[in-house]
Amino acid sequence: MQEKLNTLKSKLKDITNLQKAAAVLIWDQEVNMPPGGAEARAEQLATLQKLSHEMFVSDEIGVLLGDLAQVDFDYDSDDAALIRVTRRDYDKTRKLSTELVEEMSRTFALGQHVWAKARQNKNFAEFQDTLAKVVDLNIQAAEAYGYDECLYDALLDDFEPNMKTSEVRTVFDELKATLVPLVAQISERVDAVDNSLLQQNYPNQAQWDFSMVALEAIGFDLKRGRQDKSTHPFSISFSVNDSRVTTRISEDTFPSSLFSTLHEGGHGMYEQNIGQSLDGTPLAGGTSLGVHESQSRMWENILGRSQPFWQFYYPQLQNAFPDQLGQADMNQFYRAINKVEPSLIRVEADEVTYNLHVFLRFELEQELLEQRLKIADLPAAWNAKMEEYLGLTPPDDALGVLQDVHWSGGMMGYFPTYTLGNIMSVQFYNQTLKEIPDLPQQFARGEFGALLSWFTENIHQHGRKYTANELLKRVAGSDTIDAKPYLGYIQQKFGEIYNL
Amino acid sequence: MQEKLNTLKSKLKDITNLQKAAAVLIWDQEVNMPPGGAEARAEQLATLQKLSHEMFVSDEIGVLLGDLAQVDFDYDSDDAALIRVTRRDYDKTRKLSTELVEEMSRTFALGQHVWAKARQNKNFAEFQDTLAKVVDLNIQAAEAYGYDECLYDALLDDFEPNMKTSEVRTVFDELKATLVPLVAQISERVDAVDNSLLQQNYPNQAQWDFSMVALEAIGFDLKRGRQDKSTHPFSISFSVNDSRVTTRISEDTFPSSLFSTLHEGGHGMYEQNIGQSLDGTPLAGGTSLGVHESQSRMWENILGRSQPFWQFYYPQLQNAFPDQLGQADMNQFYRAINKVEPSLIRVEADEVTYNLHVFLRFELEQELLEQRLKIADLPAAWNAKMEEYLGLTPPDDALGVLQDVHWSGGMMGYFPTYTLGNIMSVQFYNQTLKEIPDLPQQFARGEFGALLSWFTENIHQHGRKYTANELLKRVAGSDTIDAKPYLGYIQQKFGEIYNL
Repeated sequence: MQEKLNTLKSKLKDITNLQKAAAVLIWDQEVNMPPGGAEARAEQLATLQKLSHEMFVSDEIGVLLGDLAQVDFDYDSDDAALIRVTRRDYDKTRKLSTELVEEMSRTFALGQHVWAKARQNKNFAEFQDTLAKVVDLNIQAAEAYGYDECLYDALLDDFEPNMKTSEVRTVFDELKATLVPLVAQISERVDAVDNSLLQQNYPNQAQWDFSMVALEAIGFDLKRGRQDKSTHPFSISFSVNDSRVTTRISEDTFPSSLFSTLHEGGHGMYEQNIGQSLDGTPLAGGTSLGVHESQSRMWENILGRSQPFWQFYYPQLQNAFPDQLGQADMNQFYRAINKVEPSLIRVEADEVTYNLHVFLRFELEQELLEQRLKIADLPAAWNAKMEEYLGLTPPDDALGVLQDVHWSGGMMGYFPTYTLGNIMSVQFYNQTLKEIPDLPQQFARGEFGALLSWFTENIHQHGRKYTANELLKRVAGSDTIDAKPYLGYIQQKFGEIYNL
Repeated sequence: MQEKLNTLKSKLKDITNLQKAAAVLIWDQEVNMPPGGAEARAEQLATLQKLSHEMFVSDEIGVLLGDLAQVDFDYDSDDAALIRVTRRDYDKTRKLSTELVEEMSRTFALGQHVWAKARQNKNFAEFQDTLAKVVDLNIQAAEAYGYDECLYDALLDDFEPNMKTSEVRTVFDELKATLVPLVAQISERVDAVDNSLLQQNYPNQAQWDFSMVALEAIGFDLKRGRQDKSTHPFSISFSVNDSRVTTRISEDTFPSSLFSTLHEGGHGMYEQNIGQSLDGTPLAGGTSLGVHESQSRMWENILGRSQPFWQFYYPQLQNAFPDQLGQADMNQFYRAINKVEPSLIRVEADEVTYNLHVFLRFELEQELLEQRLKIADLPAAWNAKMEEYLGLTPPDDALGVLQDVHWSGGMMGYFPTYTLGNIMSVQFYNQTLKEIPDLPQQFARGEFGALLSWFTENIHQHGRKYTANELLKRVAGSDTIDAKPYLGYIQQKFGEIYNL
């Protein structure tokens, strides 16, 4: 049986290496690639994904998994986890034909360039045919996967394993019931927080330098990772020991580059702290996008938009930007970076309105995939929902329906995980606070090691060994995702800021 | 038969895509990768190379090639070239076992990191075991390939197809007979050329900016390529439309970064100007390293170290470095960048002594591979030859035997192609001068388009369709490689500078 296990591992290693090679190609595509390279890159990615798919869905792997199912491994062992996670992946992946996988890969790689150009030209029409193809391929994939309750379940499951659309809808409805009126309430007193000090010119290089300082300070290991710039910030991992993050710097939207860095750094540290024994195996990754996002949102928001963090870093920030911040005190800055204001762009939204952007996408995706909404009517539907949730109408498609890269890259069913991540971030963080009550005092001294260690110990090191629900149960004392702690956090923080 | 051809093409496309993916991973490794990533990267490359090897040497491809050999394609057609080049590659590659290919890939990827560290520590002993393994793997490969005259033939053939070691020795002996006494003669009047104006501090950023200007000016298409920095300058191509070059900037060895850029730019333009119809096929590459090097050396030396080039660019260079060059006239600068002086580092050597560095490596490689020289004795043998050819003894291994990346990357039999390239560069260039006599006048106006067009038309566009000898015959009126034009060029140029 040991021999069968070794054979399985050796096959999975090649497959993982192909997938990691594809990740390098994707990273390069977003960070470095000259425009001329797009077409060939799409072909290269299609080949890598086709081959890794073919190798993975081979009958031989099915037989190995079947044989190994007989063995009674300790549930918590790496081997047991490898077999159960691979079994799940295998059963799902085998449902997609190699042709469909190849077609998806090629379409999605080229789609990002079509989208980037359409966005530049603020013209949805240029992206419409590509999106139609993306929706169609996603429908094909969902039908191939199969589902019980609704088609969207099949896609969501790729990003948030085992989560059902109906469960998401339940927590989202709970959030909506509190957040929509809260946003409306705050909108009435929008002038209570003045963020004009952020609306100055913050030079590019100084922003970059500060983001590098912060990235290293929170514990991102630059010997096993690096930061670059890209149009859309993202993180990706080629190995536990090679994790890449990107940020985007704009001189007049301070400090969004820093928050991008903290956000992607949170993702990157999750990947860096996966156990070395899992490197190069299918277990070396985040267990779900929601859990991944819980890490990025924690470092970005719970930490990066908190008073203790800035107690330590604000003097350094003032040194980096003496003309812009020399006259403002820490409290002014803290309030400014936490100003709640309905806005057009999801990635620049504050903590409270952010989730409304997610609700909008979650709902529109379902309408598109269930073909209740025509692609051509999407911009109008988008704008109507923006008006409904946030009271705003995008002046053009770039600030509306074209703002996100996800659909162009083929990802539908992904957006809800952002809000699931917000919710879980507080579930986990509240537990760390219980166990290490002086965390805020540590942050105020610029010490983040205890926080990172807790997450490494309880979450990161396990990679994909445990599901999101298992992690919640093991370390956060919850049976499942629970919106209440998050709502409590939001109400307390913003109640204080807005004196509600 | 058309169907068989299509099947072959489709299989070759996947294989090429795997190889190009590996190229992206190698580029990233040299340009971006954090040190932690080395081990996983070596594994990823090993998988890509193992799979592309397995796919290529499959019996099925052999059968297809056999069947297609029956068809009477026009020799000059893409299809005929694809079949004959693939046949040659196939017959060679099938001789290597998949295990050997995988072992080579892993050893060579890790070898570069061992070498880089050993070089940093100036300590050959740290690299010795790796080099022993590299030599052993090369011997295994050569024995597997087979050879008539000598083992070195089998390796040389990988880089300079069909070239024999004995032919190389003949041209090298002819060069040696002229160059060694010439270097000695110039060494006696080394003070005739003063290059002290280069021995000032030239700021990094201004060097980079000027190199980007020059790269674009000579015709490198930045929409289909890019330049970065790396420890050892190199060029690599992921597609006809995505060609990467690197340079290395040192503030006190001006203008070596510029010459690196011109050199790698020459390689890069060869790759960029291969016919679009060949992109993604095995024909999309240089036909031999010697021909490739003829391009890089032409742009670096025949052009970049010429009077006409600097007639145009020297005023711009003075603007970029007013403190350093404001007081020196163009002729002083021209003489300075052409100073001949025995030195320790090949890549920084002048045009005349450069070849002596190659002779040394060509000879030592043969001794190592024929096991006439023990690895442990290599540094001493290196130093003895440096003394013999250049009258110098390296003060440490970093400036001696550890200076080149090639061996650590597994490449043995590669070095001679540098001098073969020097020789061919003049064979080709003399022909362009015959056809476009006012080229130097064009250069003096900053116009390089006609030169690049000639090479695109006569050499670049064909990729690997014609061998080096076929190209020499078709476009340069020579039956084979010929040292005389190159010696004539050297004697004229340096006779003038040194008043010999």
